[in-house]
Amino acid sequence: MRVGVLTGGGDCPGLNAVIRAIVRKGVQEYGYDFTGFRDGWRGPLENATVRLDIPAVRGILPRGGTILGSSRTNPLKVTDGIRRIKRTLAELEVEALITIGGEDTLGVAARLSDEHGVPCVGVPKTIDNDLSATDYTFGFDTAVGIATEAIDRLHTTAESHMRVLVVEVMGRHAGWIALHSGLAGGANVILIPEQRFDVEQVCAWVTSRFRASYAPIVVVAEGAMPRDGDMVLKDRSLDSFGHVRLSGVGEWLAKEIEKRTGNEARTTVLGHVQRGGTPSPFDRWLATRFGLHAIDCVRDRDFGRMVALRGTDIVRVPIADATSRLKTVDPALYEEVGVFFG
Amino acid sequence: MRVGVLTGGGDCPGLNAVIRAIVRKGVQEYGYDFTGFRDGWRGPLENATVRLDIPAVRGILPRGGTILGSSRTNPLKVTDGIRRIKRTLAELEVEALITIGGEDTLGVAARLSDEHGVPCVGVPKTIDNDLSATDYTFGFDTAVGIATEAIDRLHTTAESHMRVLVVEVMGRHAGWIALHSGLAGGANVILIPEQRFDVEQVCAWVTSRFRASYAPIVVVAEGAMPRDGDMVLKDRSLDSFGHVRLSGVGEWLAKEIEKRTGNEARTTVLGHVQRGGTPSPFDRWLATRFGLHAIDCVRDRDFGRMVALRGTDIVRVPIADATSRLKTVDPALYEEVGVFFG
Amino acid sequence: MRVGVLTGGGDCPGLNAVIRAIVRKGVQEYGYDFTGFRDGWRGPLENATVRLDIPAVRGILPRGGTILGSSRTNPLKVTDGIRRIKRTLAELEVEALITIGGEDTLGVAARLSDEHGVPCVGVPKTIDNDLSATDYTFGFDTAVGIATEAIDRLHTTAESHMRVLVVEVMGRHAGWIALHSGLAGGANVILIPEQRFDVEQVCAWVTSRFRASYAPIVVVAEGAMPRDGDMVLKDRSLDSFGHVRLSGVGEWLAKEIEKRTGNEARTTVLGHVQRGGTPSPFDRWLATRFGLHAIDCVRDRDFGRMVALRGTDIVRVPIADATSRLKTVDPALYEEVGVFFG
Amino acid sequence: MRVGVLTGGGDCPGLNAVIRAIVRKGVQEYGYDFTGFRDGWRGPLENATVRLDIPAVRGILPRGGTILGSSRTNPLKVTDGIRRIKRTLAELEVEALITIGGEDTLGVAARLSDEHGVPCVGVPKTIDNDLSATDYTFGFDTAVGIATEAIDRLHTTAESHMRVLVVEVMGRHAGWIALHSGLAGGANVILIPEQRFDVEQVCAWVTSRFRASYAPIVVVAEGAMPRDGDMVLKDRSLDSFGHVRLSGVGEWLAKEIEKRTGNEARTTVLGHVQRGGTPSPFDRWLATRFGLHAIDCVRDRDFGRMVALRGTDIVRVPIADATSRLKTVDPALYEEVGVFFG
Repeated sequence: MRVGVLTGGGDCPGLNAVIRAIVRKGVQEYGYDFTGFRDGWRGPLENATVRLDIPAVRGILPRGGTILGSSRTNPLKVTDGIRRIKRTLAELEVEALITIGGEDTLGVAARLSDEHGVPCVGVPKTIDNDLSATDYTFGFDTAVGIATEAIDRLHTTAESHMRVLVVEVMGRHAGWIALHSGLAGGANVILIPEQRFDVEQVCAWVTSRFRASYAPIVVVAEGAMPRDGDMVLKDRSLDSFGHVRLSGVGEWLAKEIEKRTGNEARTTVLGHVQRGGTPSPFDRWLATRFGLHAIDCVRDRDFGRMVALRGTDIVRVPIADATSRLKTVDPALYEEVGVFFG
Repeated sequence: MRVGVLTGGGDCPGLNAVIRAIVRKGVQEYGYDFTGFRDGWRGPLENATVRLDIPAVRGILPRGGTILGSSRTNPLKVTDGIRRIKRTLAELEVEALITIGGEDTLGVAARLSDEHGVPCVGVPKTIDNDLSATDYTFGFDTAVGIATEAIDRLHTTAESHMRVLVVEVMGRHAGWIALHSGLAGGANVILIPEQRFDVEQVCAWVTSRFRASYAPIVVVAEGAMPRDGDMVLKDRSLDSFGHVRLSGVGEWLAKEIEKRTGNEARTTVLGHVQRGGTPSPFDRWLATRFGLHAIDCVRDRDFGRMVALRGTDIVRVPIADATSRLKTVDPALYEEVGVFFG
Repeated sequence: MRVGVLTGGGDCPGLNAVIRAIVRKGVQEYGYDFTGFRDGWRGPLENATVRLDIPAVRGILPRGGTILGSSRTNPLKVTDGIRRIKRTLAELEVEALITIGGEDTLGVAARLSDEHGVPCVGVPKTIDNDLSATDYTFGFDTAVGIATEAIDRLHTTAESHMRVLVVEVMGRHAGWIALHSGLAGGANVILIPEQRFDVEQVCAWVTSRFRASYAPIVVVAEGAMPRDGDMVLKDRSLDSFGHVRLSGVGEWLAKEIEKRTGNEARTTVLGHVQRGGTPSPFDRWLATRFGLHAIDCVRDRDFGRMVALRGTDIVRVPIADATSRLKTVDPALYEEVGVFFG
Repeated sequence: MRVGVLTGGGDCPGLNAVIRAIVRKGVQEYGYDFTGFRDGWRGPLENATVRLDIPAVRGILPRGGTILGSSRTNPLKVTDGIRRIKRTLAELEVEALITIGGEDTLGVAARLSDEHGVPCVGVPKTIDNDLSATDYTFGFDTAVGIATEAIDRLHTTAESHMRVLVVEVMGRHAGWIALHSGLAGGANVILIPEQRFDVEQVCAWVTSRFRASYAPIVVVAEGAMPRDGDMVLKDRSLDSFGHVRLSGVGEWLAKEIEKRTGNEARTTVLGHVQRGGTPSPFDRWLATRFGLHAIDCVRDRDFGRMVALRGTDIVRVPIADATSRLKTVDPALYEEVGVFFG
């Protein structure tokens, strides 16, 4: 049997660990052959492939990024996309397709599998941890680690000077990275996209913190918005995919805090640093186990399914479950963490 | 209400994060006062206390170790131990006792609570991750991170020279650290206490690995033993607590490999490095949430209970559940990971 | 003898290591007493002091920031500043003053020492490494480490996607951090304040890099400016000290690259993260040796002098030597490194 | 012109950075061709080569180890060694040979160059920093960083328990790693090969430290020996190269301390972990500059010379200068650091 593998969407630490596990187990235990598709759905669309065998996956476990390349190409938006994919798979005699990706990539896999009879297995991937049906996605722990380390470093400046430090972290629609890194880093304010924030409340926390001890650290998810959204909305721009880009809530917030409290404020925007570098051991473990179970799905011809983490177990769920709704931060959890604000 | 807190057993990254969360929420939300007991059960036995309020827990979140100190003192083995503890609690007007510890510490807490009416709440702690009733314990992720980093580093030497590299990691009775760090670090052999190993099989893996690519890395838990146990048993010694200490399985194994395969072998023994330093973000998150829920148990007067992780939720279980049996590595999981051996 | 110690200017990893070394050697070997002055020159101006003895310096070696606090207060700009300082020193019977700081702080120390007979010893401190008379200043190696780690992480994204990644690092007047971290991180373009850059040349490098391999990484010092400076100058603002602040050369450059090359570009602004956290071993070594030699200057009553690094030796130079001119990047060195551009 | 490159001796972080700099500048600026020799002197002896061009050095800057492989093969001890090397160079039309290595490798290069007319350029390499004629060698800063991090971690255990922690670090003949990491890590005792230690003095320091604060950390170089050397000498063994191997001074010392002071002691043996992983930014900078200057020596036909660091400059010295005597720790420097013992 020949199995295809592709990675779609933004890069994420752990992608290579998944690929390695799939190939190692597939070749050694089941005797499969593999075809790597290049740059997400562009690969099967354009018959762009990469050699994928045991030598090809040697040494990639600790490496970030993806040896297959990635893109945001969506075959549902390409003329004749699905037919072209099916033709490529037929030509190459690929009998099963493992798709590693986030909401968009898996959404296509669900459609291909459920509606067009393409035998897909899904592996969930998002640095933002906002996919339903799985406790965690790989890449998230690494991103939280990077953001936490940055916050840790800022404490020494906060202790020595009287400056508010604002850290803008990833999270366009869900505040998981902000929440986990903010809590782990001992931030005094954490702002997430799930709940519009009140700038006056933020300033009150900042001011009370100054009184209690040293200067405060504010962690803000890039997708967080103030209650009076218009203040930020006028700075909006569109990114290359036509999505709205909220440019610089961190910088904007720092200026507001300076203006309203009279304290100096400085901003750190971590950006793509959060999705780079070697995956954390947790992410390597999770990604590897996802890979091992994904190839077992293929062996069982259990298509249309996605591997997922439940507690310490890897389970199988319908791919569509992961993409039907965004997993956002539960208000109760946000409130639990709120004891550390101010 | 006055609440006592103690930490028992070996130190573990995250202890301070638990203490901080208990105190922050206890003071701010419930208006409690706190008494810190020094050095585990020695504290209530000898009325040795530490001031424990919000200033005392400032800045301790990222610090390893425990501000309360720790010991392995067991009041059940001390003359009149339980009566002395009850007397101290009465004198200090401590109405609830949060005990943060492993099998031994929690075993005492279960007895005190169930048999002697001392209102205890437990927080599970072990670097080895071998406590039942919780998916993970804090400290484990940090230890795995340190061991994985060491394995990562050894790859470059393995690539450049023809030497077998043996890494001995913690895990006297359970192989979790070896399994997770070995998998995450791309080790070629992982040996755990749950399954006696066959030195000939290890040498076969070593030899085949040399043929396939560069020199192999062998991860061995300190409690792992060869099938023919006598080889190691003669090197046994007793540690200060009267427990059997298997001295140097890593060094022993390296010598066996040299002797049997003719390849040079080198050993790294990480030792206490694995339980030191700042906790990982995962451990800070888990420890903090354990602390927040432990003080909620006190508020609910839900004594004799321990907080535990299930998936992403913090739940409450009888303290005794955690200590009734050791959580060891499931043979099926060990086999799953075995695809990477050799 | 009683010795005063103060730290001035921006915080910098290693300050605490200097303080600890001064106190340990001063107390143990010479039997001195110490007075810590709070917040730089504000301390002697306002008689604001901190207890400074061996217990006070325990455990501070690996901690960033400064236990003495810091400020940018300049006594030369304060009415009656010098007289007030002399009065405080007289009242407290402080017979020697060790000043740890950068250009501004040391400039004051030179004046006090040379013109007003205040017995000062200087310790050079700047994260930017731009003080003359010393091979390196502590804090710089740590800052370079943090910036390099960020660049390392960006490579995986650059490999997986077609995006230009711009990293803005510290360095208002000197490009040392950009040069060292850019070289160590394998950046494709490095822009420093010492040489105005040509945006067209940057875009040419970006384009050629895309052709040769994966997406380029551009490191830009915050003080770097394009040849046609007006493009940036209109974004200038003043910071709280009345200095010109070039706001966002990184963000500006990313937009220019997008506009001119048609490639997407993303920016990371590390900000104060670079001056935080634990000092690197190199910086701890250097800072400790500076401290040991500074207290020897006091013992020798060798005032008006500053400790400095020459090769592997700690030497003494006139304080004024360090502040007479900025140590900028030599054009020949910049050209040497230029072989890696594009 | 065709230039040969080889790496000899133990692997060391920064080797790949040297190779990359040589090739990048050699190809881009001087139009040279390169031949990589495999496994040190084995390469030219056996005409074992590796392709070495710009694609071959892409991405290797941050990677430890050496893409050329290494060995301890000594052509002076091989029948007809020098004639075979000369023949290989002639056959391949290699007109210059850059040898990157330590005392042994450079010793051969000096002989080849000075006595046999082989045009060699040397690049000094040793993790131990014990080569004369250069302020530092690359790899050393990385090793110190790894050892320091381990010591940092042990402090938290030392603070929480009453145990002496012994860390054995690299350094067979010189104590540089022990001295720098011990100082940077805040160790309470540092033992180096240059000065035989008195176990009673060590125990006195241990005991006084226990009284003053928390448990002590003892850093011992693998080559350190007690005054009464016989105690250790009976444990000596020979390694595969026929050198004396002092097996386990750390373990031996821990047992002596336990026996003499009654305190529990634990040992960490870092081993090859210290020479693995990604080079520090300092080492990447130094290694890269060594490479850039080595290829300039070739261009200048300045053979028999070695690049070296003096302050912040790269200079050229006769290769023989580096190998004529070991650079050991100056007694005055050891005494300077001694203020922190006990």
